[in-house]
Amino acid sequence: MISKSMSPRVENSSAIRAMFEEGLRMARIVGPENVYDFSLGNPNVPAPPEVNQAIIDVVKTEDPIKLHGYMVNSGFDETRQAVADDLNDRYGTKYGISNIVMSTGAAMCMNIIFRCILDIDDEVIVSAPYFVDYTNYVSNWHGKLEVLPANPEGGFMPRMDELEKRINKKTKAVIINNPNNPTGVIYPESVIKEIAAILEKKQKELGTVIYLIADEPYRELVYDGTQVPHIPDYYDNALVCYSYSKSLSLAGERIGYVVVPDRSDQAEQFKIALGIANRISGAINAPSLIQLALARCLRTKVDIDFYKRNGQDLYEALTDAGFDCLKPQGAFYLWMKSPDADEKAFVEALKEEHILVTPGSAFAGPGYVRFSYCVAHETIERATPGFKRIGQKYFH
Amino acid sequence: MISKSMSPRVENSSAIRAMFEEGLRMARIVGPENVYDFSLGNPNVPAPPEVNQAIIDVVKTEDPIKLHGYMVNSGFDETRQAVADDLNDRYGTKYGISNIVMSTGAAMCMNIIFRCILDIDDEVIVSAPYFVDYTNYVSNWHGKLEVLPANPEGGFMPRMDELEKRINKKTKAVIINNPNNPTGVIYPESVIKEIAAILEKKQKELGTVIYLIADEPYRELVYDGTQVPHIPDYYDNALVCYSYSKSLSLAGERIGYVVVPDRSDQAEQFKIALGIANRISGAINAPSLIQLALARCLRTKVDIDFYKRNGQDLYEALTDAGFDCLKPQGAFYLWMKSPDADEKAFVEALKEEHILVTPGSAFAGPGYVRFSYCVAHETIERATPGFKRIGQKYFH
Repeated sequence: MISKSMSPRVENSSAIRAMFEEGLRMARIVGPENVYDFSLGNPNVPAPPEVNQAIIDVVKTEDPIKLHGYMVNSGFDETRQAVADDLNDRYGTKYGISNIVMSTGAAMCMNIIFRCILDIDDEVIVSAPYFVDYTNYVSNWHGKLEVLPANPEGGFMPRMDELEKRINKKTKAVIINNPNNPTGVIYPESVIKEIAAILEKKQKELGTVIYLIADEPYRELVYDGTQVPHIPDYYDNALVCYSYSKSLSLAGERIGYVVVPDRSDQAEQFKIALGIANRISGAINAPSLIQLALARCLRTKVDIDFYKRNGQDLYEALTDAGFDCLKPQGAFYLWMKSPDADEKAFVEALKEEHILVTPGSAFAGPGYVRFSYCVAHETIERATPGFKRIGQKYFH
Repeated sequence: MISKSMSPRVENSSAIRAMFEEGLRMARIVGPENVYDFSLGNPNVPAPPEVNQAIIDVVKTEDPIKLHGYMVNSGFDETRQAVADDLNDRYGTKYGISNIVMSTGAAMCMNIIFRCILDIDDEVIVSAPYFVDYTNYVSNWHGKLEVLPANPEGGFMPRMDELEKRINKKTKAVIINNPNNPTGVIYPESVIKEIAAILEKKQKELGTVIYLIADEPYRELVYDGTQVPHIPDYYDNALVCYSYSKSLSLAGERIGYVVVPDRSDQAEQFKIALGIANRISGAINAPSLIQLALARCLRTKVDIDFYKRNGQDLYEALTDAGFDCLKPQGAFYLWMKSPDADEKAFVEALKEEHILVTPGSAFAGPGYVRFSYCVAHETIERATPGFKRIGQKYFH
């Protein structure tokens, strides 16, 4: 029998499947080339050739027992060292092997962190709109996700007054997702400093430890030279979650890491705790072959210009059609105000043009929709007349 | 700050690290070839060459987006079909794609099952001695693991009277680990039938659903023609967890599956629930490249004879030296009665001969020790004089 905790999740999933199936049904009727699906976040730029070459190289040259065998739960030394070196070169940090804990992608990185810091009814704060599965990552460990109201007037930066108000003795962490899914904005240094100041103040006031968890799977997908601040430079109790799902298009391979800075609370024990959490959560370790390959190629990147061009052209097409969009700064998402206060009705209207997007309420951001632009450029071109027709319907 | 739930686990881990470090220290003093380490469960037979060939083939021929991309959380259709076909050929079952949910190894398979069936304070039963991390897999989801006392008189089969007594309204599952870690015994058909009868009876009596979870990572490692019964043939609410960690020596790659038989409770919803649990637990999916490779080679097996010979020779060496051992039937573990009622003192005595084993109390089986014989055969040969000397010390 499915548990009380799981049952509602199974019921909700039927709505998502219905949407997916509607897309398939539409494709059967009008042809897949005439369905413009902006609803999925699956990278559509192939992994760089260096990745596949590295995989073949390690298969051919690595000790066969090591290649597919267990290692310490936190990962191979050489992979962790390569990650640390890369971060050190880019951020001027001094990370070593022990500061890096490899795990099966950013989703698992967050889960093992919550396994380490949450007891029943502890709280974690995030600002709306946010990636929905944070709710699950926190409730898995019987914590509660507290959601700050969205801040459309302030460019969807967290509302600092609300953040400060919401922190209490039970607050164990604040999540920031930078660049942000679903808004595509990047929190600049000034915002990070404000958040850090509030957390410092509240830690002192309450005598507690509040982690700032930076979920950064889109860190390399930034445009126009924008920089994503390295959070541990601004706050001691920072933890960074990273994934190679997007920067190397390895989403299916499940590989990423947590950075545990030496200045963070109980750092030495926390590094051990994360390794244990890797084991007992069932992840055990990041996949061995991909770890070894990554050690040889992790400084390569996918073709970011592909996403950049998509983001620019989608933004232009939508604003030309009269829509009110946030200019994409990073990730591969565009956040657009729905011309209908009920954005679900607007999502339905878009379907008449065979355009599929995700309603903002799926991210606790009603009144908006999310376009995911990891699509063929042609999809944007071919959808543009539809954007115009829908725009005319709403704005003229 | 590390949570109350996690802190004791971090403290306990220092004992394990101390043991590991003592092994390293010993190796530095007497040379690694003179340390006989029977404490680790890392397969030491390489993956069959077909696996690496399949990896290279899929890297060279597969669509690059599919190769490393997301798929449905339950896995690629072709991999699930290959798993189903393999099971059908061997057990005469009629599994299809939907009955197989791929995940990141048996440890994660168990975690996603518990994510689906446990609410706070629900109970899961296992018989001592047992693989210690079951405690964690259950307590992750705030369930309680209830441990039946060991049954040395009955060949370490579960005590049926205790099983029946321990089942109550909160009992959601019984775990059997077959072949068994740490005892190396295989539960025969007669035992499975007895367990099934008790569960059937209690389900009716209590009006509940009690899953029988078969954790079978060692299923292919069986000797002397012994067969591991296919549990769903004996009980409707059976779930099978499998891993390729041992049968293909892919422990580091994290790949395995759950079998959800159509006759099991809420089967259709349960299949969906496991996919959701894969996603929200952070596993997301079993690694994509290895899934695709596995679809091409999953019927190959590692060299089982290597383990068989090790098990036989270790058993002979230890019984010759006077020790009381269970004859290994499967897995790569040998379970031996400690000649000292305090088996930890005996473990220390073995260290004087540079022999490292795991004390039974690490498996809730005090008074015994576990030898893991996934070692070079030479290790057994070279340790034999030490076994004799220790035997003489205790038995003469």
